[in-house]
This record gives sequence, C-alpha cells and structure tokens, in this order.
Amino acid sequence: MQRGEKLYEGKAKVVYATDQPDQLLIEFKDEATAFDGKKRGTIAQKGVRNAAITAVIYRYLQDHGIPTHFLAQVSDTVLLVRKVKIIPLEVVVRNIAAGSFCRRLGWPEGQTLFNPLVEFFYKDDRLGDPLLTEDHIQLLRLATPEQVERLKTLALQVNQLLQRFWSERGIVLVDFKLEFGQTPTGEILLADEISPDTCRLWDASTGDKLDKDRFRQDLGRVEEAYAEILRRVTSSPAATPAERGK
Amino acid sequence: MQRGEKLYEGKAKVVYATDQPDQLLIEFKDEATAFDGKKRGTIAQKGVRNAAITAVIYRYLQDHGIPTHFLAQVSDTVLLVRKVKIIPLEVVVRNIAAGSFCRRLGWPEGQTLFNPLVEFFYKDDRLGDPLLTEDHIQLLRLATPEQVERLKTLALQVNQLLQRFWSERGIVLVDFKLEFGQTPTGEILLADEISPDTCRLWDASTGDKLDKDRFRQDLGRVEEAYAEILRRVTSSPAATPAERGK
Repeated sequence: MQRGEKLYEGKAKVVYATDQPDQLLIEFKDEATAFDGKKRGTIAQKGVRNAAITAVIYRYLQDHGIPTHFLAQVSDTVLLVRKVKIIPLEVVVRNIAAGSFCRRLGWPEGQTLFNPLVEFFYKDDRLGDPLLTEDHIQLLRLATPEQVERLKTLALQVNQLLQRFWSERGIVLVDFKLEFGQTPTGEILLADEISPDTCRLWDASTGDKLDKDRFRQDLGRVEEAYAEILRRVTSSPAATPAERGK
Repeated sequence: MQRGEKLYEGKAKVVYATDQPDQLLIEFKDEATAFDGKKRGTIAQKGVRNAAITAVIYRYLQDHGIPTHFLAQVSDTVLLVRKVKIIPLEVVVRNIAAGSFCRRLGWPEGQTLFNPLVEFFYKDDRLGDPLLTEDHIQLLRLATPEQVERLKTLALQVNQLLQRFWSERGIVLVDFKLEFGQTPTGEILLADEISPDTCRLWDASTGDKLDKDRFRQDLGRVEEAYAEILRRVTSSPAATPAERGK
C-alpha cells in the first residue's frame, strides 16, 4: 500500500491518499487538544495506543454486524480504511451524565440517564461544534431524516455492543462520540476513531477516569490511562457474573 | 377583580393572584434585560405598550382558534389571564435568521429559512436557557412526546396567523418566542406575552428593527420602536395587494 498525498491534517490524525482510489490511510498523532483547541498538548504514545485500541474495537464491531470503514492496521500508528464522505455530524451517545451535558443541563457528573441519549453536534470548529436538533440538520441539509434515523439506530447498536465490550474489561462506558461517512453508493459506514480521545471510560471498581478527561482536567497520569485502556482492550475479557451463570 | 399576593416577579412582568383561584393578573414593567440579565435598562412606556400590544394580539389569535390564557385587559399595564402551570420551555419560531440562530450556525442575519423552524429552549436562567433536542425534553420530563407535537403544531399555527397579522401592518415577522401552560384538566394554552420584547419585527419597507434588538444592540430610538409597533397594531390593517384582488 503506497502512501499518497496528505489530504487532511486534524488535531489528532492525518489522512493520506493511497494508490487505491477508494482507500485511505489514517495516521494517529500524539497531539491532543481540548475545549475547541484552547488547550493543547502532547500525550506520549497516544498515537500508537489509539491506533491499536481503534483497530481492536473496529474489528469487534464489524464481527458484530456494524458496517465500518476499517480494513487493516498497517503500522503502529496507521490504519487502512475505506474512503468515505464524512457526514459533518458528531454523533454522541451518553449513558451517564458528564462533560457538556452537565454544563448544558446542570446535572451532576455521574448521574445515570434512564435511557441512552443520542445527541448530534455540527462538526464545525469555527462554530465550536454546536448542538443541533433534527430540524437544524434538515435545514442545513446535513443529512436526510432517513439518514438521521439510521445514524441513531447505528449509534445505539454500537452503544449496546461497546457497553458489553467495556463491561467485560472492568470499564464503565460513560459516553462517546462517533462519526459516520457515506460510500459512493450511499452506504453509511462508521468512521473515525474510537479511543480514550473519543470515549469517557471509568474504571468500574474505582471510578478512575481512564480517558482524555485526565488531559482536559489536568488530573495527571494521562499516558498511564491510555496504556491501561490498551492493556484491557488487548487482554482476554473477564467473564462477567451474568455470563458465568449462563 | 381583587389583586392578591405577588406570586412571581420576573424581568419584565409581575404576576399576582386574584380572588379567583383560576385567574391571575400580569403587570407589565418598563424594565428590560438582555443576554441572560447581563444587560439591564428601562424602556419608557414599555409596560403600557407591551400590555396593549399583547392584548390585541391575543384577541386576534383567540378569534382565529388559538387557545390562550388571555381573558381581559384590566388597566394600562395589567392583563387578566387564566391560571396555568407554565411548561418550562421557550418555544421559538424562526422565519428569517437572526440572533442566537446566527451565532449558533454561522448564518448571516436576514437569510430566509426555507421552512419555519421551531426550536425549544429550557426556561432556566441559571443555565442560560440552553437549546434542547426533543430527546432532552423527554429525558428531563419537561413534556411528553404528544405535548411536544402539540406545542410545535400550535407554534406553527401562531406563526402563520402572526405572519399575516404583521404583514398587513407592513412588518416582517423574523422570529418570536412563545410560552405555553397547562390547565388543571391538561389543556395546553398559549401564555405569556407577545410583544417587541419577544418578537423580532422589521419594517417591511426600510428593514428597520422595531423590537428589543434596538435595546440589545444599542441602536437608539428604542421607545419609538415600541410606540410604532403599538401604533400599527391598533390602526386598521392596510389591505394587502393579494386581498385587494379578492
């Protein structure tokens, strides 16, 4: 696989063309930003770890029927993916109140939501990724009502799968952000990364934060959190009590 | 009608009990605030003018089938209304981009929306009245899905009626905020005021702003704008070309 021209450089990743018109390479970087780029830094080994974590999770999701852009991990920090047109929406699923949800609605961090909540944000750094209603999405022509329904359904399916995946590894899945893209034939695929940069992950026993909130909130032991998540992702899952009973 | 105890004092109005358990008095004040209370001031004669404007508009809406809390104007600044439990949502209808819509989505002020847009904001000063999706409304148990549908339907009906009402008076209805309340039997009534404090109203010929944006944006001639709106509201509507043709 020949690496072609750089197509896009974001905050945490670089995207390259390949010699295949329908395939891209995504390189994961150690750089980190938060609060719409107001806070910047580097998390040692983040690129390597997030690439590996994303690869494991995408294989898991694909094995469980979720259509994704993932094809292969081709080096420590680089994934090969199908080329898609990214839908400019950040699709956030929340199981427990944290982050902007708490700031917006005044809930205390850690309060469980009765049902998982799906939120859509407009992928636009200039505007600070604002929350959108479904009517906004229609008005801005970012996706059709049918596509919005499909995104919601896929996001909730991913949530169910990832809740189980993380629970088997002693982690509570608090919330996460997904992105989706469209193939030339209109198929919607899960795209982008799934990592401690894009998920809130709390240790199920201690409540310790094992995600980018350690960087955002200056909690220390940032690299260690990413290392711990990689360790749990690549180790065999512990059988849960419920599964042992089966 | 005996004025009873003061039940609530807000930024622009005071609500009093009456000797009837199911009726309230609303007194309109000259005080004005903007930007979540960060800007404060007084607009001379605003109370008198907004009470009169609201009374005329509520009578018009009632005559056209909209259920409202309005009963009568009892003095220069005071309306008698049915007592309702206010649903803590600000229901905003937009025909033309302005205000927080432009800040949120980066649209230029004045751009026409293809379809009227209904937005819901959480009536909570402490949180700065945040935008809510319908899923947030369910999660916070602010209204049932059926009630949200009813609010949307009523808001769009009010928009159609008010677009015509203002158009006949040489005014473009840019956007407006509604509130609704519930009677003890669960009936949903339009409540609160409808005035230059809660609507964006532009002169159809000159584009002049004739609403609270003159106060928010320090445009001058604030009192004059409220006076002009009252003058147009209480004068006979000009027949529109379309109606002359009938």
